[in-house]
Amino acid sequence: MSAQSTAGQVIRCKAAVAWEAGKPLVIEEVEVAPPQAMEVRLKILFTSLCHTDVYFWEAKGQTPLFPRIFGHEAGGIVDSVGEGVTHLKPGDHVLPVFTGECGNCRHCKSKESNMCDLLRINTDRGVMLSDGKTRFSINGKPIYHFVGTSTFSEYTVAHVGSVAKINPAAPLDKVCILSCGISTGLGATLNVAKPTKGSTVAIFGLGAVGLAAAEGARIAGASRIIGVDLNPNRFEEAKKFGCTEFVNPKDHNKPVQEVLAEMTDGGVDRSVECTGNINTMISAFECVHDGWGVAVLVGVPNRDDAFKTRPVNFLNERTLKGTFFGNYKPRSDLPSVVEKYMNKELELEKFITHQVAFRDINKAFDYMLAGEGIRCIIRMDA
Amino acid sequence: MSAQSTAGQVIRCKAAVAWEAGKPLVIEEVEVAPPQAMEVRLKILFTSLCHTDVYFWEAKGQTPLFPRIFGHEAGGIVDSVGEGVTHLKPGDHVLPVFTGECGNCRHCKSKESNMCDLLRINTDRGVMLSDGKTRFSINGKPIYHFVGTSTFSEYTVAHVGSVAKINPAAPLDKVCILSCGISTGLGATLNVAKPTKGSTVAIFGLGAVGLAAAEGARIAGASRIIGVDLNPNRFEEAKKFGCTEFVNPKDHNKPVQEVLAEMTDGGVDRSVECTGNINTMISAFECVHDGWGVAVLVGVPNRDDAFKTRPVNFLNERTLKGTFFGNYKPRSDLPSVVEKYMNKELELEKFITHQVAFRDINKAFDYMLAGEGIRCIIRMDA
Repeated sequence: MSAQSTAGQVIRCKAAVAWEAGKPLVIEEVEVAPPQAMEVRLKILFTSLCHTDVYFWEAKGQTPLFPRIFGHEAGGIVDSVGEGVTHLKPGDHVLPVFTGECGNCRHCKSKESNMCDLLRINTDRGVMLSDGKTRFSINGKPIYHFVGTSTFSEYTVAHVGSVAKINPAAPLDKVCILSCGISTGLGATLNVAKPTKGSTVAIFGLGAVGLAAAEGARIAGASRIIGVDLNPNRFEEAKKFGCTEFVNPKDHNKPVQEVLAEMTDGGVDRSVECTGNINTMISAFECVHDGWGVAVLVGVPNRDDAFKTRPVNFLNERTLKGTFFGNYKPRSDLPSVVEKYMNKELELEKFITHQVAFRDINKAFDYMLAGEGIRCIIRMDA
Repeated sequence: MSAQSTAGQVIRCKAAVAWEAGKPLVIEEVEVAPPQAMEVRLKILFTSLCHTDVYFWEAKGQTPLFPRIFGHEAGGIVDSVGEGVTHLKPGDHVLPVFTGECGNCRHCKSKESNMCDLLRINTDRGVMLSDGKTRFSINGKPIYHFVGTSTFSEYTVAHVGSVAKINPAAPLDKVCILSCGISTGLGATLNVAKPTKGSTVAIFGLGAVGLAAAEGARIAGASRIIGVDLNPNRFEEAKKFGCTEFVNPKDHNKPVQEVLAEMTDGGVDRSVECTGNINTMISAFECVHDGWGVAVLVGVPNRDDAFKTRPVNFLNERTLKGTFFGNYKPRSDLPSVVEKYMNKELELEKFITHQVAFRDINKAFDYMLAGEGIRCIIRMDA
């Protein structure tokens, strides 16, 4: 169907539906309702798989919500727009984002925050904000949404505040990975840790987010980028992202913060924590240099964890910050991240280790569960 | 004696000597040796008393070092200079400072730090850095120094890196209080918390440092400055320093961070902790708004305290920092703080609640031990 002909109509298309926790997705024909006020319907061209999809698909730590369409890293084109939508039109190239930017709340108006009051990530909600209903159904039975994006579908509906319009010249099969993890790590370094040229940065956890944090340090001109991970196989990969040294805490019989302090004459200038392990968080803070060290927490901890340190570590002029989506405001800031790729400052190809056709989407889950590769692109047209 | 005639000679003068922990100081005639290489001898005109003097005089928590000459908030004039001193000369108006700035170490070269490797505060050392000897003696018996300043003496010797040269037009009986506590609180707000105009700031602990932190918030144009203290008598005084509201944790049956969050629609923009109590530190952090809140720790905790909070408080984009001497580099930055007073931006008179003659210096201790007033100026010529 052409973009215009679908306006206001239900679209029937393929989607990968998670019927039950932990069970392979099933490609089904779903009905996608037209966008309501302040919503847009997107044709998804490429999506990728992120740990968060897997976490909620496994549903081990939360209330399960099924059947559901997962997916939140993607690139697509606007199919049609609902009432009141003025800044997006059919044909625009966009990245849907799991957290939004309403533009009107205190957070959106603050220069410092991206934690929009209206559209902040909500992993429990499986329906649209406006009417509490789903836009997906199969024979009238509602299929739930995931974080307002549900990109494992040829068409999806999102709130206009969760959709970033980007340069139409940008290849969507590459920049789609900027929707979540890569921007999270990149922004943690570039927007929050802000290492200066020539500085020393430690990255804890060399998964996709950590490698993106290292890429941020490389772009910032850090002269030493020390990767910390329990898996020694990570280092070869990490070199491509600028890591110059590698520390495996298992190789030492003292706390890794002490190892790092010895390697760096008292501590690193900046650290970025991407594992979510509470002890790693403490190490990431305690390894920064007094006087100017800044540690940034990115990894999501367990709810009951307690961060614990001696307060003198702060009084000696260390800073501890956390970040959410790398402090990027999705609509305002993602276009400039895409431009960083377009002008070859940011390298994205090296994050993309696998590609599968949409019909083989469960392979992407297999790769991630096996810890293979970094990002797997899922081509919707194949 | 004229400045020139004293060069290279021992000076005999009055000093208030602490012979024993917790016992009244005794005004004695002491001998003050000439300054050695990279040292200056100062004629102290005004000094004031700070809690840190009292803490080490009581010697309850540290190895006692006596006999000792305390004092570290002061204003004076350079009497003579040792070998190699080029940027100070007899007659210069100066503030001695308990922590120094060598100008050459990594900290001094960093824009972010003031924690000089060479001259960082050392409360255990009672001798000069260069030769491990004292410059004070009574009949040949050495009298120990305190934090490199020992300003409870008509003359003292300090490392050149611990002496800030200031505008000679500045009244030393006022700006002497900028040597320690007032700059610490002021800088915590202006240099570290950095509230924006119209923002909301909470100040925990309304002693001299906390009131100076409030003064910083007033100067920065904060629209709400919420003082938090267990002593309700503090509030009237605190109003003079810009406090617009007052919260006494004792008046509430829930944690003070919750009280502040309710008063401020989710949290304050900035907080400054000036008590050193570990639970207050935790409250000061947890009361700041997500997205942009910054908490700054100033108060010195007990060595064994553990700062503890849920890491999600960081991940929601809160920042926790500590500061030492308000992040001011003593030599580079104190002159500009004096100028803030000279151009009437900063008000100092309201901090000065008492004055005593040097011979009555023990009265200053009495006032502080009784919790009376803020700063007591001790006039050395009286």
